[in-house]
Amino acid sequence: MLSDESSDTDAIAVVHRVEWTDGATHEAEDRVVREEPLEIRIGGVPVAVVMRTPGHDAELVRGFLTTERVVDDPSWVASVRHCTTAEHPDAENNVMQVVLRQGHTVDLARLRRNLYASSSCGVCGKASIDRVMETAPALVDHTRVPVTALYGIPENLRAQQAVFSATGGLHAAGLFDTAGTALVVREDVGRHNAVDKVVGWAHANRPVLTETVLAVSGRVSFEIVQKALAARIPIVAAVSAPSSLAIELARRADLTLAAFVRGRRLCVYAGPQRVIP
Amino acid sequence: MLSDESSDTDAIAVVHRVEWTDGATHEAEDRVVREEPLEIRIGGVPVAVVMRTPGHDAELVRGFLTTERVVDDPSWVASVRHCTTAEHPDAENNVMQVVLRQGHTVDLARLRRNLYASSSCGVCGKASIDRVMETAPALVDHTRVPVTALYGIPENLRAQQAVFSATGGLHAAGLFDTAGTALVVREDVGRHNAVDKVVGWAHANRPVLTETVLAVSGRVSFEIVQKALAARIPIVAAVSAPSSLAIELARRADLTLAAFVRGRRLCVYAGPQRVIP
Repeated sequence: MLSDESSDTDAIAVVHRVEWTDGATHEAEDRVVREEPLEIRIGGVPVAVVMRTPGHDAELVRGFLTTERVVDDPSWVASVRHCTTAEHPDAENNVMQVVLRQGHTVDLARLRRNLYASSSCGVCGKASIDRVMETAPALVDHTRVPVTALYGIPENLRAQQAVFSATGGLHAAGLFDTAGTALVVREDVGRHNAVDKVVGWAHANRPVLTETVLAVSGRVSFEIVQKALAARIPIVAAVSAPSSLAIELARRADLTLAAFVRGRRLCVYAGPQRVIP
Repeated sequence: MLSDESSDTDAIAVVHRVEWTDGATHEAEDRVVREEPLEIRIGGVPVAVVMRTPGHDAELVRGFLTTERVVDDPSWVASVRHCTTAEHPDAENNVMQVVLRQGHTVDLARLRRNLYASSSCGVCGKASIDRVMETAPALVDHTRVPVTALYGIPENLRAQQAVFSATGGLHAAGLFDTAGTALVVREDVGRHNAVDKVVGWAHANRPVLTETVLAVSGRVSFEIVQKALAARIPIVAAVSAPSSLAIELARRADLTLAAFVRGRRLCVYAGPQRVIP
């Protein structure tokens, strides 16, 4: 059996947020899903980092090693344990040490995704945020958006999703002005790709992205906020839920993050000063 | 302006599938979203592969380069063009060549995701499938599942999503037996992670995964089918839509792929022989 004593409480963080219903605001605590990096080390060597929800980490690592074909057979893995000698105390729950049975080695060239490309930064949410902000500092614009403009965004986004209507299989991202008018909408099988297509369009057509809103059809993870920040888009509006680390990065970067935008209701998790009645 | 003459038809593929409604089957053509690899080369050097929906490829590359901080500023990019000298004719639409303005170089260590780890395989759907099947050959089991067992899976999956209920922010994956009973359900902010947690659990608790079904709460991309195949799970059932490449891999591997499993209706896109009345 796996020695993996996880509980559902590991997976949930409590954050403060502002709910707008019609024109009225209401502040409350809200529960959001936790997102944290997990570094996988084999024989002490970092081989991958995945952004995951804490809990069942040993299972995650064992599954990752076989489904990504890092090991040929699950029996190669002698043990998977949280690494208690991490360089940074904050990272202690986010580093897993894999020991292989004698005689087995791994072919790291098989790791197609999430290859470890940076080091010595510690592996925790705070370090992930620090690293993003080294190259993308906090926003200092004075953009404002009426909450009514945000309310209409999901409907405008869906109206332009030609391929989704045909297949049901696509994520969408769109760039909107602060009146809620769509400038561009793009679809892709990958959430990140849809955002990248929008940003690539913007670079050719609207070089300054202050006074714009990035809308996404699904959830908001750390990487979506990181992409908006890198593109200097000050407001992100999402139809579904945000993760804990997306919220933390948005707050550190002073980026406005609105989620659960549905009908005449939305929740603001960061940068509330940009949302006006 | 970008020289990116994409149309929505690039994004859609037509496939044959079997629809089960209650006990009755109905065969028809269906439109699904296309998924293909895209290789990004800078100055001729492959730096990344992303799985994307074809269309607006130049925008995707320009956006990727800035939001992943490969370039410090969009103005560094002199041109982005489809590479017409790809080694394999099939790959011609799936390789993009980036030329930077003189005096600029990129820091490849910044590429956190999708680093290019393999080469000389061609970059197209067929080559991606070939590569997976080198280490995970086609399935040869005789598993059968009653369609009524599949109908109940989404409800059983959702019933065990404790964290989703609290936060709305999670993907779920579950392993079910062929009677439709849940063996394990795991949640994660990442779709792939939820599948890996299930597979990791299975390795400790049920080493042989013939006679099981992998259920996922969302869409089915190439990588989800690839993970199921690597784990030797013969049936994948999804609540939402499949991609073209997920279907192609499932067919080549003789893996059963059911999607849009909702109420007493589902569609089978591959391996129909395992689904029985």
